[in-house]
Order: sequence, then C-alpha cells, then structure tokens
Amino acid sequence: MKYCSHCGARVTSRIPPGDDRPRFVCDTCQTIHYENPRIVVGCIPEFDDRILVCRRAIQPCYGKWTLPAGYLENGETLVEAMKRETFEEAKARLTAVTPYAVFNLTFVNQVYVMFRGYLVDQDYGPGAESLEVKLLSEHDMPWEDLAFSVIRETLRRYFADRRNGTFPFHMGDVEPG
Amino acid sequence: MKYCSHCGARVTSRIPPGDDRPRFVCDTCQTIHYENPRIVVGCIPEFDDRILVCRRAIQPCYGKWTLPAGYLENGETLVEAMKRETFEEAKARLTAVTPYAVFNLTFVNQVYVMFRGYLVDQDYGPGAESLEVKLLSEHDMPWEDLAFSVIRETLRRYFADRRNGTFPFHMGDVEPG
Repeated sequence: MKYCSHCGARVTSRIPPGDDRPRFVCDTCQTIHYENPRIVVGCIPEFDDRILVCRRAIQPCYGKWTLPAGYLENGETLVEAMKRETFEEAKARLTAVTPYAVFNLTFVNQVYVMFRGYLVDQDYGPGAESLEVKLLSEHDMPWEDLAFSVIRETLRRYFADRRNGTFPFHMGDVEPG
Repeated sequence: MKYCSHCGARVTSRIPPGDDRPRFVCDTCQTIHYENPRIVVGCIPEFDDRILVCRRAIQPCYGKWTLPAGYLENGETLVEAMKRETFEEAKARLTAVTPYAVFNLTFVNQVYVMFRGYLVDQDYGPGAESLEVKLLSEHDMPWEDLAFSVIRETLRRYFADRRNGTFPFHMGDVEPG
C-alpha cells in the first residue's frame, strides 16, 4: 500500500496512538488502513468411501491436485462459500455439510475453514479452474502431487479419522511446502 | 474505496473478466482490489462455574458487557489472537483452550471464532478498553446489557451446553440486534 484508498494521498507506515503495531496511515484524511488475514473455505466432498479431488487448471500449482476451496466473499456465509466453490471447481452439489477443521497459515495471512460434505449425486465435472475432477479412494490419492500443504494436512487427518471411525473438529497450524 | 492504493489513480467498480461480482479495479495499473470478511477471535474465560465478562470502555456499546474478542492480525494464529485479546481487555491468562463456535455475521462482513479457555488464576482486571471485569455465574449474567448479538448467542449456547454436560462445536448465523 502506497496511497490512501480514501483520498489518494501518500500513506506512511507507523504505529497509531493507542495501537501496538505499524499500520498504513493517511496524514491527509487521517484514515488508518488495517490489513487482516483472509478466510479460505474448502470442502472434502464424500461419496461412499471415495472423495472428490480436482486437478488445477490455474497457477499456482497448475496440474496439481486439490480440494474445492476459495476466498470467502463479503455477504456470504462459510457454508454458502464452500458450496459455491465446490460447484465452481467441480460442478458438484453437497448435502449434510459439517465443519471439519480450521488451519492457520500465518505465512500467507490466511485461515482455512474446511468442511466435510456428502455429494448429492455423481453429477460432477471440471469447472473453469479445473483440468479434471475425480472420485478417488484413499489408496489412489496422489499424495506426491497435491497442490498445497494445507490440502495434504486436511487429507492426512481426514483418512486417519475415518480409520478411527470418528471425526472430531480439528485446529492446527500449517507450514509452507 | 475511491483511489488505487498501489498507484493513486481513481478506481472504478466493475466485474473483472472471469469474475462474477463487482470489484474496485484500477484502469491505470490494472490492480484488482478484493475486499473480504474479517475474522474476530474471542473467548469464554472459565473459572469453576463462572465466566469472565468485561464492561466496555469504548464505543460501540460503551458500558455494555462483552467477552474478550478482537480482530485477528496478520501473522497471528487464532489462539495467539484470542490470548492477546483476553490479556488486553481483561488482564487474564488462559490455559486449556478449545475451539467452541464459528458465527457468520454477514451484515458486517465478519466471521467470529469463539474459544473456551480456563483461567490460569484469579489474577484479572480491566485493560484500557474495559471499565470493569467480573467473574459471573449464569444466574448473574447481565442478559439485558450485553454488547452484541453474537455475544448473547455464544453465551446462550454455552450455558445450554453446560447444563447438558457436553460441548459440541457450533456453527451459526447471527443477525444484528
């Protein structure tokens, strides 16, 4: 941030009175510009003993496998965003959705909220951001070709829980790589 | 948003190619400015059968009662933010923290993440944003003087769970008022 989005003047970075960390501040119109983490909402779409995964048609990680996920938009609930992303990326519809995990990704200022959801039917296919979409069993997971560490961590916990026969709510910190 | 924070030119609101909703776009440097919900992290600080509540020394809702809560900052985990806010507002330290609930507040573009946490000791008191801080039982809760509907909804679910003897993870949508 170099300019004030409110008045167009140059901003400076300093600690405002009563605050404890640097913010971009406009000395012309006095606006303090706060920057905060964004929420990414995603889903593990289930069907019998398989889950739906998407191969990315966009960067970063073009060609790698992922779960449907994307930014929460203003005015949207987490469930609405998760269903929207699942339809956009995998043309799939969900029922019986349950919050599953929250992950901190402090290195990119993101919080991931992951759900489990059951596919309404086997009507699915690649959306504009996917090359292909497949229902895969744990045995067939492309562990070496997953797009992001948060997806690997989600799937690792999910299959462990399924072997244990119980799905507690998870919270964790994810590192890059 | 009126000006591009990157180059200082005027922005316009329109739907970028490949997108489905209006964004502030800079036609000079081509930056698309996304606006997304913010995360507020809060806590129900427990001690025996009582919980710690704070009376607000700031607007909005000056003089009303609330739970420690505030915006998640860049670079911070949810647990770090929740402990920081609890110390800033109630000078209290927590142990044994557990995620308790997530609430959508679409009318203000916020997502609340609430924890339960146990007070390390009875060493607490008002921080700069609180007039007073008290350990109260359910019987003494100031239900008519709570600051926000999300606080009322959190406490309503919490005391119901406590009567039931179990604390499942909650997700819900909160309306204004």
